[in-house]
Amino acid sequence: MATPAKVSKPEGKNNHENADEAADKEQQEAIEQIDEVQNEIDRLNEQASVEILKVEQKYNKLRQPHYSKRSDLIAKIPNFWVTAFVNHPQVSALLSEEDEEALQSLTKVEVQEFEDIKSGYRINFHFDVSNPYFENDVLYKEFHLNDTGEPSSKASPIKWKAGKDLTKKNSQIKGRKRSHEEQESFFSWFGDHLDAGTDELGEVIKDDIWPNPLQYYLASEIEEEGVDEGEEE
Amino acid sequence: MATPAKVSKPEGKNNHENADEAADKEQQEAIEQIDEVQNEIDRLNEQASVEILKVEQKYNKLRQPHYSKRSDLIAKIPNFWVTAFVNHPQVSALLSEEDEEALQSLTKVEVQEFEDIKSGYRINFHFDVSNPYFENDVLYKEFHLNDTGEPSSKASPIKWKAGKDLTKKNSQIKGRKRSHEEQESFFSWFGDHLDAGTDELGEVIKDDIWPNPLQYYLASEIEEEGVDEGEEE
Ligand SMILES: [Ca+2]
Ligand SMILES: [Ca+2]
Ligand SMILES: [Mg+2]
Ligand SMILES: [Mg+2]
Repeated sequence: MATPAKVSKPEGKNNHENADEAADKEQQEAIEQIDEVQNEIDRLNEQASVEILKVEQKYNKLRQPHYSKRSDLIAKIPNFWVTAFVNHPQVSALLSEEDEEALQSLTKVEVQEFEDIKSGYRINFHFDVSNPYFENDVLYKEFHLNDTGEPSSKASPIKWKAGKDLTKKNSQIKGRKRSHEEQESFFSWFGDHLDAGTDELGEVIKDDIWPNPLQYYLASEIEEEGVDEGEEE
Repeated sequence: MATPAKVSKPEGKNNHENADEAADKEQQEAIEQIDEVQNEIDRLNEQASVEILKVEQKYNKLRQPHYSKRSDLIAKIPNFWVTAFVNHPQVSALLSEEDEEALQSLTKVEVQEFEDIKSGYRINFHFDVSNPYFENDVLYKEFHLNDTGEPSSKASPIKWKAGKDLTKKNSQIKGRKRSHEEQESFFSWFGDHLDAGTDELGEVIKDDIWPNPLQYYLASEIEEEGVDEGEEE
């Protein structure tokens, strides 16, 4: 153990040397005992984490058939996912017109939490053959902690069709909704591995959209904002 | 349920009216079925939360005697808490010289998670009679969600001794370590209820210091930064 950074000592050292030594010894013993108590607390914390992980894993399994059934139902609704994304304020801000066009081919989203939940998650995006932008049937992005505990991510390389790479077009191009913002493509996210520890889009999809995408699909109030029906609130 | 914001409809409406109606009906049924599946998922999420809460509560009880023992041991070490706070980078940044002087009388800190953990927590700060700044034996700050689910906080009014109110002194006063920063008093926190949902200091104490204050008490490397011993790293 390191020594404390700052422990105030009585000042008259010569007069009270024995008393000082006794006090120092008592403090040192107290520090060692705190360290032992701390080990007990750490052990309990680890046990608690293990038990909570088991609960999470149990419910992940129980949720799975419902997620499958939900995916089958969502597949019956054209443009379900692009509508949910457009209706989500944070995701919508990332979407160019062309992104939205590409996302019309998005038929299925899957979020997989890994068995050891702390170790990460993966999002699969399934596209159908109508997609005019890229060849991939599935794009994924995956987040995990590597052996040294640092967050990292990997993702599908996108096989863009000729002249269709949305990540290479810049904001001069027309048809972007919000040309006053720095506008990247949604699909740039698949090539961005700098903030794996706090991937905002990944976390929004996993924690906000995935638990209940229907609410965003149905969230027509957001759409009303930009509507030109002459209505003033 | 609301209606979807955007569902693309086939364009030639006259020719395919019956087919359209059938498709609309199938989609509407799918939405209703998704809603039912979603209710099942919500129910499982609630069950998971209840089970996790029980685990948390069980371990909160199991940790309690260790925390008590730790508090008794910490009380044997003069300036334990002020040293731990000074050695914690985020807390240290909030401390003026006078705050540190006042915190030399801080003998005991207690973090209490409420029975329903989601409903909040309370931090008690116990001061001994040597405190020249205020009369209170205990200052507390408490965080909870109110009935409408909004975060709120309350705290002890501080009974300052005459001329000793550290929250009324501004940065012109000498003896502040970091006069180039906007420097408030640590004790201003007890009167700040604007960010109850994301109270940074509360969360640092609860989640970072409280689980292991000894590591900050012993964290002499931080202290070394400002030391004038002529050592260069
Ligand atoms: Ca947009
Ligand atoms: Ca300071
Ligand atoms: Mg679809
Ligand atoms: Mg003490």
